Amino acid sequence: MVPIVSIVGKSGSGKTTLLEKVISELTRRGYTVGVIKHDAHGFEIDHEGKDSWRHKKAGAQTVAISSPEKFAVIKDVSVEWTPERIIDSYLIDSDIVITEGFKKSAFPKIEVVRKANSTQPVCGNDKKLLAYVSDFKVSVKHPIFKLDDHKGVASFIEKEIIKKHQSSGISLIVDGQKIELKPFIENLIRDGVTGMIKSLKGCSGAKEVELRIRQSRQAAKTTSRKK
Amino acid sequence: MVPIVSIVGKSGSGKTTLLEKVISELTRRGYTVGVIKHDAHGFEIDHEGKDSWRHKKAGAQTVAISSPEKFAVIKDVSVEWTPERIIDSYLIDSDIVITEGFKKSAFPKIEVVRKANSTQPVCGNDKKLLAYVSDFKVSVKHPIFKLDDHKGVASFIEKEIIKKHQSSGISLIVDGQKIELKPFIENLIRDGVTGMIKSLKGCSGAKEVELRIRQSRQAAKTTSRKK
Repeated sequence: MVPIVSIVGKSGSGKTTLLEKVISELTRRGYTVGVIKHDAHGFEIDHEGKDSWRHKKAGAQTVAISSPEKFAVIKDVSVEWTPERIIDSYLIDSDIVITEGFKKSAFPKIEVVRKANSTQPVCGNDKKLLAYVSDFKVSVKHPIFKLDDHKGVASFIEKEIIKKHQSSGISLIVDGQKIELKPFIENLIRDGVTGMIKSLKGCSGAKEVELRIRQSRQAAKTTSRKK
Repeated sequence: MVPIVSIVGKSGSGKTTLLEKVISELTRRGYTVGVIKHDAHGFEIDHEGKDSWRHKKAGAQTVAISSPEKFAVIKDVSVEWTPERIIDSYLIDSDIVITEGFKKSAFPKIEVVRKANSTQPVCGNDKKLLAYVSDFKVSVKHPIFKLDDHKGVASFIEKEIIKKHQSSGISLIVDGQKIELKPFIENLIRDGVTGMIKSLKGCSGAKEVELRIRQSRQAAKTTSRKK
């Protein structure tokens, strides 16, 4: 799993501005940064009248646009995707993923509290809260960074999140559900699959493996029946 | 692999309009449609000043936005992704993927030729060309649909592409490269992995399996050394 930190705080606290500067600083330091923003109210991202907008409007579930420098995709979902699923599917190549607005998640958190906006933190009792970014002494237990100290926040993320992260891992998604694996099973699958593919051309030193299997209806039925 | 058809034709031939109507018709018939548009010149998709736009601008390689109904991602790439890679990563849940503008690809193609625009097809000698959509008799060898016959085109795609497609398959991407597999190896990996996971809770009737393995640097070195 890619390391994650969530920037939380009340609306108007200055999350987006802080995030913008922290992204810029971590990128400058050579990290590949991914961002996930939670939007409870839906959002508009494409421009009305553009081809991609027309195709989406016509009923396409997914529209992707590909150019030599950039790639974009817009997709309808029936239930909101968890950040873990988004990361597994779309951000696996990031060195760090910063999320904005997932205050109920179990991710490590940094909260922005600005006196003129509110003096009451939203994650005061959250055990995953690592630090505050604030213009007053909001806590005695946590480190507090000044509102404009995005370099300090970037260094904190680097030290506490990125460097502490163990970069090996395995993720298994079956029929859209993430399957939790015990360490023994994780090792069994990792070593089994790595073993199976390592003699294939181009696979001997594999660092990252993505495998997708889609059973035909026939085969899935046979498998179920055999049990 | 998901079934694919490419709508090709000269600029101004009416590809986007046809595609829009065909998407609408296939969606009405109950298919989940994915679209990939090729854009040689780069594109703008987000709205200036929005949070996601600001984060991307600040240097984030990937920005994702998640809501209960919709999901979007914008990502920088260093080389243009092939449609196959895009499908494997983002459109694996589509019943049919329609691409626009990949005229040099090896996908089955339908070409739009409109007399007022050009009388010279771009894929005239392409063996993968299945049909024309045109307002004149552009070929004697291929079926020709009228410009407004999007229902006919949808039925043709349904019969020739979707129904003929074998829906089982396996895709393996190692360190960003798609690995071509011989049928024997494909079966070995499919049966091996399905066998390994089928006793896990929630995995017994697995129809679609996504597995990602990321080796730590240490482990990758050990694997290479062992060989």
